[in-house]
Amino acid sequence: MNDRIIYLNGDYLAESDAKLPVLDRGLLFADAVYEGFGILDGQIVDFIYHMQRLERSLDELSIPMTFSVDGMFHSLMVLIEKNNAQSGFLYLHVTRGAGDRAFHYHNQYVPNIFAFTQGEKFAADALPQSIELLTYPDLRWARRDIKSTNLLAQVMAKHAASQSGAFEALMVDANGFVTEAGSSSFFFIKNQVLHVRPVSNEILHGITRQTMLRVAKERGILRVERTYSLEEALAADEALITGSSIYVLPVGKIDGNMIGDGKAGAFTLALREGYLAKARNEFYVPQVS
Amino acid sequence: MNDRIIYLNGDYLAESDAKLPVLDRGLLFADAVYEGFGILDGQIVDFIYHMQRLERSLDELSIPMTFSVDGMFHSLMVLIEKNNAQSGFLYLHVTRGAGDRAFHYHNQYVPNIFAFTQGEKFAADALPQSIELLTYPDLRWARRDIKSTNLLAQVMAKHAASQSGAFEALMVDANGFVTEAGSSSFFFIKNQVLHVRPVSNEILHGITRQTMLRVAKERGILRVERTYSLEEALAADEALITGSSIYVLPVGKIDGNMIGDGKAGAFTLALREGYLAKARNEFYVPQVS
Repeated sequence: MNDRIIYLNGDYLAESDAKLPVLDRGLLFADAVYEGFGILDGQIVDFIYHMQRLERSLDELSIPMTFSVDGMFHSLMVLIEKNNAQSGFLYLHVTRGAGDRAFHYHNQYVPNIFAFTQGEKFAADALPQSIELLTYPDLRWARRDIKSTNLLAQVMAKHAASQSGAFEALMVDANGFVTEAGSSSFFFIKNQVLHVRPVSNEILHGITRQTMLRVAKERGILRVERTYSLEEALAADEALITGSSIYVLPVGKIDGNMIGDGKAGAFTLALREGYLAKARNEFYVPQVS
Repeated sequence: MNDRIIYLNGDYLAESDAKLPVLDRGLLFADAVYEGFGILDGQIVDFIYHMQRLERSLDELSIPMTFSVDGMFHSLMVLIEKNNAQSGFLYLHVTRGAGDRAFHYHNQYVPNIFAFTQGEKFAADALPQSIELLTYPDLRWARRDIKSTNLLAQVMAKHAASQSGAFEALMVDANGFVTEAGSSSFFFIKNQVLHVRPVSNEILHGITRQTMLRVAKERGILRVERTYSLEEALAADEALITGSSIYVLPVGKIDGNMIGDGKAGAFTLALREGYLAKARNEFYVPQVS
C-alpha cells in the first residue's frame, strides 16, 4: 500500500490509520454505497452528477445523507490537494454505520464515510490503445441501479477477464442480451449510429454514459437506446466503454473477435475528445453563500 | 455497542479496537465470506458442517484458507470463554484482504479474519412462540450457494418484514416459487410429509436445514425436496424456519394468512426437540495430535 492520505469521517488520516469497526454494516452486509470520480487537472469530473446518483442510492436504501454537496466537495478537494492528485481516480464510500449484527436497521446508525485517491490507469490525454473484452454471465442482483458495494459478481467477471488477458468483462444476461461491462458502460457504433442499452434496474446508470450521450447529441451523432444481443455487438463497426476512471476507451476485440478493424475508430476518438473537453468545461463551482 | 471481546487475526481485542482498513476488499467489494454458528451450553453447534461450507465458499472465490479447522475451533472456543457465552450466536468472517482498489485480485492479498459472539434472540430450551413471515421478492444474485457478504437483498427483505411487524421475510422468485427465508431455511408439512426446496445455486445450503433433514429421517418422517409455489406453502398444515441463530421456529402466519391453526404443530415441536438433542450429541471434538 501507499502512504496516501485518506478521508474518514471528517479527518485526514495516514492510510494505515484509516480503519472501520469490524461491526460496520458495510463489512457485515455490504450495506453501503459509493461513487468513483475521475480527477482531471486536479479537479473532479462530473461531480454534481455523481453526487445526484449518490443521493439517489442512499435514498433507495434509506441511509441518511449526513453531509451537504458543497461540504463534501470541499472535503474531497482538500483530499485531492493533500495527495497532490492531478489525475487519476477519486473514491467515496458511505456505509449505514456500525452496530450489533442484525439484518434490519433502525435510525440510530451513524454513517461511516471515507474517500481516497488512486493513480490513473490511462493518461487522459494520450491516444488510447484498443482494449479487449471477455464475455461473462451477468450474475448480479435485481437492483443494479443502486451503486452499492454488493460487487462480487463484478469481481468474478473482471477477474476472469483479467486472467484471460482482457482488460474488462462484457456481461451478458441469460437471454443473450448484453447488459453492460464489468465496471463500465458499453456502447457500439453501427452504420454511424451510437447504440447503448437504456437505463433500468438491470444496469447501473452510468454518469460517464450520460455525459457521453450529451456529447454525442451536441456533435450531431445519431443515438439509439435499446436492448441488443451479443451478436449485434460483435457485428459493430466500432465499440467503446466509458467509466469514471477510464473516460472513454476503444474496444478492439470481444472474446478474440475483432470489432471493425480492431483500431480506435473515428466516432470513438471524436467522442473521447469531446468527453474530455466537456468534462474540463463543466468542473463544479460551489455556490457562494 | 457492548464491551465484548472480538477475535481479529489471532488477537482478542476490545470491541472498540477491532477494526479493518477501509481498503479491505470486504468493504470495497463485499469480497468476503462468513459463517454463523449457534452457541449451546457454551459449545459450537454443527461446527464441522459450517467449516465445510466455509471452505467451499472460500474455494469458490479462490480466497486462500489460511487456518486449520482445529486451529479455528480452538480460537473460537477461547473467544466464547472470554465472552462467557453460554448461548447465543457466533459469527466468523473472512475477507480476501486489503489493497489498492481493483476488482480483479492477485495472490498477494492476506485474508483478514474476525469473529464475535452475540446474545441469543430466543432461549433454546423455551417453548417457541409462532412467528410471522412477510413475503418479499427475491432480488439476490445468481450464486446464492456462496455464503458471501453480498447481503443487501436480504437486508431489504428482512427490513421490510421487520417494519411490517413480521419476524422474517419469505423470499419468492419472479415465477412465484418460494426460494427460502431472508436468513433462514423454510420448511412446511403437508399431509405428514416435510417439504423443502432442494439445494442449488438458487438457495444457500443451510447447515441447520441439513441437520434437520437428518433428524427427520431418523424420526421416520417422510421428506420431499422439491421446488414449490407460495400457494402451496400457504396451504401447509405446519410451517417452520431453521437457522443457526434460531434453531427451529414455528411459522404461524405468512402475510397475515394463518398456517394450520397458527400454533406450533406436532411435527415442528418434535423436529425442534430432535434438532437440539442432536446438536448436543454432536458437539465437535478436535483430533488429538
